[in-house]
Amino acid sequence: MRRFEVVFQPGGRTVEVVEGTTLLEAASLAGVPLEGVCGGRGTCGKCEVRAKGKLSPSTSSERRALGDKLSLGARLACQARVLGRVVVEVPDASLRLGQKILREGVTRYVPLDPMVKKRFLCLSKPSLDDQRTDLERVLDALGEGRAADLNALRELPFVVRRNEFRVTAVAVDGTLVAVEGGDTSGRCFGVAFDVGTTTLVGYLLDLSTGEEVGASAAMNPQAACGDDVISRIGYLMEHEDGLERLHEGIIEALNELISELCRDYEVRPDEVYLISVVGNTCMHHLFLKLDPRNIASVPFVPVVSDPLVFKAEELGLKAHREARVVVLPNVAAYVGADIVGGILATGLWEVEAPTLLVDIGTNGEMVLSADGRMMACS
Amino acid sequence: MRRFEVVFQPGGRTVEVVEGTTLLEAASLAGVPLEGVCGGRGTCGKCEVRAKGKLSPSTSSERRALGDKLSLGARLACQARVLGRVVVEVPDASLRLGQKILREGVTRYVPLDPMVKKRFLCLSKPSLDDQRTDLERVLDALGEGRAADLNALRELPFVVRRNEFRVTAVAVDGTLVAVEGGDTSGRCFGVAFDVGTTTLVGYLLDLSTGEEVGASAAMNPQAACGDDVISRIGYLMEHEDGLERLHEGIIEALNELISELCRDYEVRPDEVYLISVVGNTCMHHLFLKLDPRNIASVPFVPVVSDPLVFKAEELGLKAHREARVVVLPNVAAYVGADIVGGILATGLWEVEAPTLLVDIGTNGEMVLSADGRMMACS
Repeated sequence: MRRFEVVFQPGGRTVEVVEGTTLLEAASLAGVPLEGVCGGRGTCGKCEVRAKGKLSPSTSSERRALGDKLSLGARLACQARVLGRVVVEVPDASLRLGQKILREGVTRYVPLDPMVKKRFLCLSKPSLDDQRTDLERVLDALGEGRAADLNALRELPFVVRRNEFRVTAVAVDGTLVAVEGGDTSGRCFGVAFDVGTTTLVGYLLDLSTGEEVGASAAMNPQAACGDDVISRIGYLMEHEDGLERLHEGIIEALNELISELCRDYEVRPDEVYLISVVGNTCMHHLFLKLDPRNIASVPFVPVVSDPLVFKAEELGLKAHREARVVVLPNVAAYVGADIVGGILATGLWEVEAPTLLVDIGTNGEMVLSADGRMMACS
Repeated sequence: MRRFEVVFQPGGRTVEVVEGTTLLEAASLAGVPLEGVCGGRGTCGKCEVRAKGKLSPSTSSERRALGDKLSLGARLACQARVLGRVVVEVPDASLRLGQKILREGVTRYVPLDPMVKKRFLCLSKPSLDDQRTDLERVLDALGEGRAADLNALRELPFVVRRNEFRVTAVAVDGTLVAVEGGDTSGRCFGVAFDVGTTTLVGYLLDLSTGEEVGASAAMNPQAACGDDVISRIGYLMEHEDGLERLHEGIIEALNELISELCRDYEVRPDEVYLISVVGNTCMHHLFLKLDPRNIASVPFVPVVSDPLVFKAEELGLKAHREARVVVLPNVAAYVGADIVGGILATGLWEVEAPTLLVDIGTNGEMVLSADGRMMACS
């Protein structure tokens, strides 16, 4: 398959794409955040650009949306396909740049009890009177657990002996996930992700103090495949590899946020042991590569709503080799894990007077708390 | 690095190896089970072969062991290194072939309750009155569990809808590991491995009936690296990639046994959901790629003695994508999981009169059961 260069102006971002790629897809690959409310159907007209170079002939959608402007080089990025080298002028109106992303907020007091714990241990050395196994020695000193990850077991005999039995144990819910030489207990980080339909926000948290170290945000690259969840599900149903692409886009973007946070705040990615994720039910499914199509039609059935824990590795997230990903539970097809996060963050269920939690995002949700019950809608 | 062909006669098994490989290592790679009691130290003289072609000069060990026979082309396979194409004649006396492996025995009655369960479910279809998620629908019908593997979740919405909500759920300890279309509940298999120092035995078990379907055995390819566990630990300490090689040899041999059992008894490898493994503590460690060197010296400390469960995939075993491997616990450095398996199989702790369990293998162990206590030695 032939590949051609596409240059986006102003800024000059350049990307090489396969023949037949739409300008909207090329923009997404180049990291140029183009509008695309209708999910590439050519109906909203918001992805208008000017382009020079070899492109597919204009479509009826473009003639309807652009009229006379077509002869001046205007195209809809979702319709025009690359057939040779192309230079694209993107007008400000077609860009999603400069949106203000909420990064800070109020928090309530929560006792520090992270799922991942690091503890420095000075172990007694083995002797004929104390032939406990390496794992028993560590878990006895840690005071919890009866299990270990395979990688932790494999490094265990080397790490404890190289460090004179002074090591830091890393445990998740009683499972030993790693042993590190010396005292590294002060270096224990987590990243909390809010996967929004439009924006992605990552918070770097120091799990030894509970402090927020910093935050970073990015546009959700899936925006090129539709502005709202219904458009994205449409995109996915129209493209054989749609689920794969939407999933990979989000994982890549989250990995970039992790490496940005680590760089900015001098944390090594292998010091990130825990990642939590919230998002509406569709984003939640796309993040996990679960087919969300049954969310979009009657009777609106998600694949799963339980809280989930996986290894970061299984999802392709780049943190500590044995880092865990915690995905908050959904409530229903249109009441997602992000709302559950909001309820947890505000302590809504503890409020005595009837209180309304309102989440105004790309989609809007409300939760009413009264008389010890909570009702949600979207 | 240059590579050369080594041909083993009679039989003509051929293998290509890196320059400098010993004939003993080449034999192991070619699946020719050469004797090697001393673990490649050149002291036992049991790996005597006749070789033609470019080989390293004879060592002092060879001169001591072979004397005049050197001039007739005799070499010790553990000493002679490949420097060009070589043809090796292996005398019968140097082969481990034809050993009789115990494949059958007596068993006691054990109620059938395998860790893996398959159940055929006729699910009610979702409606506006029943918006349960796909996972809830399956787990409610199954009557257990609140969790699922990622791959099971990913296939779930497709499999249930393609099969009109008539599916078979596969669960391990309440975790949904797979969903299959239609009724496949009668096809649920496991393989039990006895990883001996000298021989490997695999039993194919029908987990829906508890019956043994068949058994198959092979030589432990690690034999080329030493006849007993101490020689193998010596081999591992003398070779930088020793642990890797001993581990990979065993995994490959077990994979061959699985595929042989599946072929012989018309079972698909993806119908094998559970694998159990016993072995002495050193074999147990090598199977898991855990460093066993501290077993060989005072105070004889294994890495782990607890029972362990991993995904087969993590260990490179080829069965169902989400198959689990259960590794029985060890007792101490020289009282292994194989003895624990023997205790479980015989019900030794239930016997009233003082009773001795004797395991005569490459290494020998005994367990005395009396007055509700058990004492073991080796």
